[in-house]
Amino acid sequence: MANAIRALAMDAVEKAKSGHPGLPMGAADIATVLFTQFLKFDAEDPRWPDRDRFILSAGHGSMLLYALFYLTGNEDVTLDQIKNFRQLDSKTPGHPENFITAGVETTTGPLGQGVASSVGTALAERLLAAEFGDDIVDHTTYVLCSDGDLMEGVSHEAIALAGHLRLSKLIFLYDDNGISIDGPLTLSDSVDQVARFKAHGWNAVQIDGHDQKAIAEAIKQAQTSDRPTMIACKTTIGFGAPHKAGTSKAHGEPLGAEELAGAKKALGWNYGPFEIPEDVLHAWRNVGREGASAHADWRQRFETMEETKRSEFQRRVVDRKRPEVLGDTIRALKEKLVATPQTIATRKASELVLEAIEPIMPELLLGSADLTPSNNTRVKSAKDVKPGDFSGRYIHYGIREMGMAAAMNGISAHGGFAPAGGTFMCFTDYARPSMRIAALSHTPVVYIMTHDSIGLGEDGPTHQPVEHLASLRAMPNLRLFRPADPVETAECWQLALENTTGPTVLALSRQALQPVRTTAHADNLCSQGAYELVAADGTAEVSLFASGSEVEIAVAAQKQLSEGGIATRVVSVPSLDLLLLQKDEVRHGIIGEARVKVAVEAAVRFGWDAVIGPDGGFVGMSTFGASAPAKDLYKHFGITAEAVVKAATERLQRN
Amino acid sequence: MANAIRALAMDAVEKAKSGHPGLPMGAADIATVLFTQFLKFDAEDPRWPDRDRFILSAGHGSMLLYALFYLTGNEDVTLDQIKNFRQLDSKTPGHPENFITAGVETTTGPLGQGVASSVGTALAERLLAAEFGDDIVDHTTYVLCSDGDLMEGVSHEAIALAGHLRLSKLIFLYDDNGISIDGPLTLSDSVDQVARFKAHGWNAVQIDGHDQKAIAEAIKQAQTSDRPTMIACKTTIGFGAPHKAGTSKAHGEPLGAEELAGAKKALGWNYGPFEIPEDVLHAWRNVGREGASAHADWRQRFETMEETKRSEFQRRVVDRKRPEVLGDTIRALKEKLVATPQTIATRKASELVLEAIEPIMPELLLGSADLTPSNNTRVKSAKDVKPGDFSGRYIHYGIREMGMAAAMNGISAHGGFAPAGGTFMCFTDYARPSMRIAALSHTPVVYIMTHDSIGLGEDGPTHQPVEHLASLRAMPNLRLFRPADPVETAECWQLALENTTGPTVLALSRQALQPVRTTAHADNLCSQGAYELVAADGTAEVSLFASGSEVEIAVAAQKQLSEGGIATRVVSVPSLDLLLLQKDEVRHGIIGEARVKVAVEAAVRFGWDAVIGPDGGFVGMSTFGASAPAKDLYKHFGITAEAVVKAATERLQRN
Repeated sequence: MANAIRALAMDAVEKAKSGHPGLPMGAADIATVLFTQFLKFDAEDPRWPDRDRFILSAGHGSMLLYALFYLTGNEDVTLDQIKNFRQLDSKTPGHPENFITAGVETTTGPLGQGVASSVGTALAERLLAAEFGDDIVDHTTYVLCSDGDLMEGVSHEAIALAGHLRLSKLIFLYDDNGISIDGPLTLSDSVDQVARFKAHGWNAVQIDGHDQKAIAEAIKQAQTSDRPTMIACKTTIGFGAPHKAGTSKAHGEPLGAEELAGAKKALGWNYGPFEIPEDVLHAWRNVGREGASAHADWRQRFETMEETKRSEFQRRVVDRKRPEVLGDTIRALKEKLVATPQTIATRKASELVLEAIEPIMPELLLGSADLTPSNNTRVKSAKDVKPGDFSGRYIHYGIREMGMAAAMNGISAHGGFAPAGGTFMCFTDYARPSMRIAALSHTPVVYIMTHDSIGLGEDGPTHQPVEHLASLRAMPNLRLFRPADPVETAECWQLALENTTGPTVLALSRQALQPVRTTAHADNLCSQGAYELVAADGTAEVSLFASGSEVEIAVAAQKQLSEGGIATRVVSVPSLDLLLLQKDEVRHGIIGEARVKVAVEAAVRFGWDAVIGPDGGFVGMSTFGASAPAKDLYKHFGITAEAVVKAATERLQRN
Repeated sequence: MANAIRALAMDAVEKAKSGHPGLPMGAADIATVLFTQFLKFDAEDPRWPDRDRFILSAGHGSMLLYALFYLTGNEDVTLDQIKNFRQLDSKTPGHPENFITAGVETTTGPLGQGVASSVGTALAERLLAAEFGDDIVDHTTYVLCSDGDLMEGVSHEAIALAGHLRLSKLIFLYDDNGISIDGPLTLSDSVDQVARFKAHGWNAVQIDGHDQKAIAEAIKQAQTSDRPTMIACKTTIGFGAPHKAGTSKAHGEPLGAEELAGAKKALGWNYGPFEIPEDVLHAWRNVGREGASAHADWRQRFETMEETKRSEFQRRVVDRKRPEVLGDTIRALKEKLVATPQTIATRKASELVLEAIEPIMPELLLGSADLTPSNNTRVKSAKDVKPGDFSGRYIHYGIREMGMAAAMNGISAHGGFAPAGGTFMCFTDYARPSMRIAALSHTPVVYIMTHDSIGLGEDGPTHQPVEHLASLRAMPNLRLFRPADPVETAECWQLALENTTGPTVLALSRQALQPVRTTAHADNLCSQGAYELVAADGTAEVSLFASGSEVEIAVAAQKQLSEGGIATRVVSVPSLDLLLLQKDEVRHGIIGEARVKVAVEAAVRFGWDAVIGPDGGFVGMSTFGASAPAKDLYKHFGITAEAVVKAATERLQRN
């Protein structure tokens, strides 16, 4: 049965003229044991909530997954799809993508991401079980990972967190083949992985990855452990290939006709390209249906659950919907905020929003990468998630920004929770590879990114974001909101939670800001990315654009300009990226026709020309920041109402 | 003597009304032992090449460093500077910045960065010693790191690489205080760090970090080990503070007047703010001059070195200059490339450049994060750097993108080498935090980033950069070049190596490209970021802008438009960021006055409006890519000469 996987992988890569045969051939025994003896799944319903998760962290070995899908009868992956491997519009892309192929739990490929997100998946399982009971939630997360996954730094963050929380239902199957692209792993690595995992609080063993009995025995042991388990399976990459097996030649390119023929011969596989003998296919198809009765039993337990709980589970896990009262809750909060205006930081405003929505969103799963008191991510009633105790709903992710972002991907992929995690905006750089996976894989998570400019102050340029707004706005399917005051913060939070097809960054100030929204609006004014906050007195000669903490500066400049007889309006731009996604007429309408356009943002200009044009005025940063109190820095870098007024009047005179 | 550090740290943080007293107070004993008994340095010349390096990875504890600098007599850090801690234009910013304060080896603050760059520093020392002899190069790299440093993923990459290479002159002093911002470390971590480091091939011990004898003994042991050493020093954060010691309250805020007074009392320190008794200061100043005789001896050995070697050392390590023949070498190569035009990928062209400059640049230190055959980073004569053998000059960094970038920062900071390392452009995301440190700290390194677009093909969207060009262009003091053919590649490499005040990214294609530069130019046409590649026949109605692999598309479109009677020029833009840094008249001159402007780049539009304006045409990507052969993808996403022609003619008709 393992040879069926190997043959399909070799044939598909050969036909595609590119791909990675080495891993599927090397790990076929591991996968066969797992799928035939352990994995709880039902090929007819790859979305069954209580299925075991199988995550191929080494995403380049995607043919392993596609072969298993085809063999077990997943409807998405037909033999034609296998033949169309790595071609446009196929269900079998180069790396597994959850939004393309049913059964792919999460998008993998960039190494370390599957490993790291699996921690979130395993954590979500335990949290959900604590809430809904082991009758309804009781599954294991299996991860097949490679040397590369374990060399990436994020693997450290992931296994440290999993070990700490004692996620005993997380099992890594490490395809320990000793080969990387440059050659033998000994060129660059000599870590003792078993000892390493043990130091991180894991159960860890090493076995022969081609000994199916040993594999089965190790998985059985892992299932009884009170710790997460890493099973290092010594394998031969490209197992069966007469000349390339055990070398980097087997990793990332077709074997070639001759070597392929030699491999089939060595494996005793006497069949043509894409040919699977009836009996082998039949045996695999049976495996695909083995979980059906467990599935049916589960369905029955689910149907007879207490009604409130069942509909809650249905909403959160199956339908993945937000609570219906979310909009009303935000509206009520906005009214309250308008009634009692507060000069507070938007990070503090964000905390007020969290306090307001927490009672109606039991799925809200907050946390911080060890900046809880700075990120204001913790509501008063919060209870910590602790090692082996999953009744809490607040996660101390530790100083692990990428680990946090990846875990949130896994939590979201699992279903049942709305994860939102905080760190400083500057450290989105650390989290970025996992944020990109979220954007690419349509994963709704919220990043609470505080200290979003030089307003951070004394900690200096290493901690002051300058280019981060631009760099995140450039990413497809990522929303970035930078609200200006409490009301905008509430609106942006609503939009973040309603964005269920991708991630959202909330960029929040450290420093207190003047409220700019002082009248109640039932509508969410931030929903098109920008809106006119202050109208001009007559036809506008000048349009000022600003986001977040600089909106109050634009408002002050507007006042000065208006008093000088220059008709000026202010457009608040909580989301430049969302504004740029609007249809031409909407965008033009918001941007307006004023002769002079000036933007102010305590960040680099890059991207703003789309609004103000190459000759527009920009008041902001062009270098890194500096270490000093925030007020001194705004003055030093010339981000003031006076500078905005000057930029506008100079341009009025010039034109 | 240790209390002098504690007192200065408490007083400075108190006066600044912000900062981190906890680490300097906790680690004062460690630092005192290191500086008084081990560290080879001469406070009068903090740039002495053979000094030991002391890297404060936990940069938030900067007052530890500043206190030591002041006490030992570093001229940059006077008592006034200490009093000016964290203020504008001081030499004592919130986190240590190498370009502001003499004696700061490298900019730290974002956790993990010091730890990771120190691996490069220790490696550079061994490589340089292998070349110039232990008489001239023989120093140790000491790193003071914190829990946070060791939680960050990059610490894994760093210690795995250091352990693998057996960098025995690298010694970590881990301030093991068990406290993080959220509270006790037990909230988020339970890694056994000693076991962890041992699994990574290190020597590791745990000691009492307030027992000066134990500290000295451990450092002595470390110096005799054939492995890098980690000394876990159990300390009390905020040591001495009566109520806050040992709690997160001591970490990141002033102690407050009362607690400060209590701490001084507990420490038996009966002096006012910023007051250091004469005898203590005298003792410290003596420490600052203890290295003077070793320095003088070294100077004598250096002066009597063989002349060629001495001037080579002077150029590379002291003056940090590139070889004078670099310009001529590139010119000669360009002539050769023009004489025999080749349709090759720019990654291949980059390899040709490396082969040409390697003989004249012995400081060139190449490597790859396990993509050597794809990045074309290895010249034919290359010899690998191996565990304990530092005669080679090629580094297999392993699958450790951030580790590589950070190590290159450390190599560059150390001096003597020009590090250049490769991975896929998409994985700049992984390296980004270290790339930012390079940009911020004026560190010249070169990133060889291949597979720079959907041209990567079948590996699909996880591996296809789309937003990366924009996200990197937004970063201050980072240059990004995306050459179009072999001649441009040679020119961009020259500019990269001549950029000695910051890092440079070379974005290189996977796929073969038509040569567009077919005549020889002695000048470097890429030096202003862009230039007119094809002139219009008459006054241009249309200007086409393109970079890298899309220049040939723009050239083809120009031909079609010209044949249709529309005067069209092509501007090649190898560096959009460099173009945008040019003075207005230069920039306007290059961009030109054509009525219609269209840019083509297989990436997102973000940033291009600065050239083409909000109404300009853009042919590129607006979503993530897909898995398919490159040619199919260019067609699928409509990045073709026909699309460029259409965008231009539509706009001509509209205006």
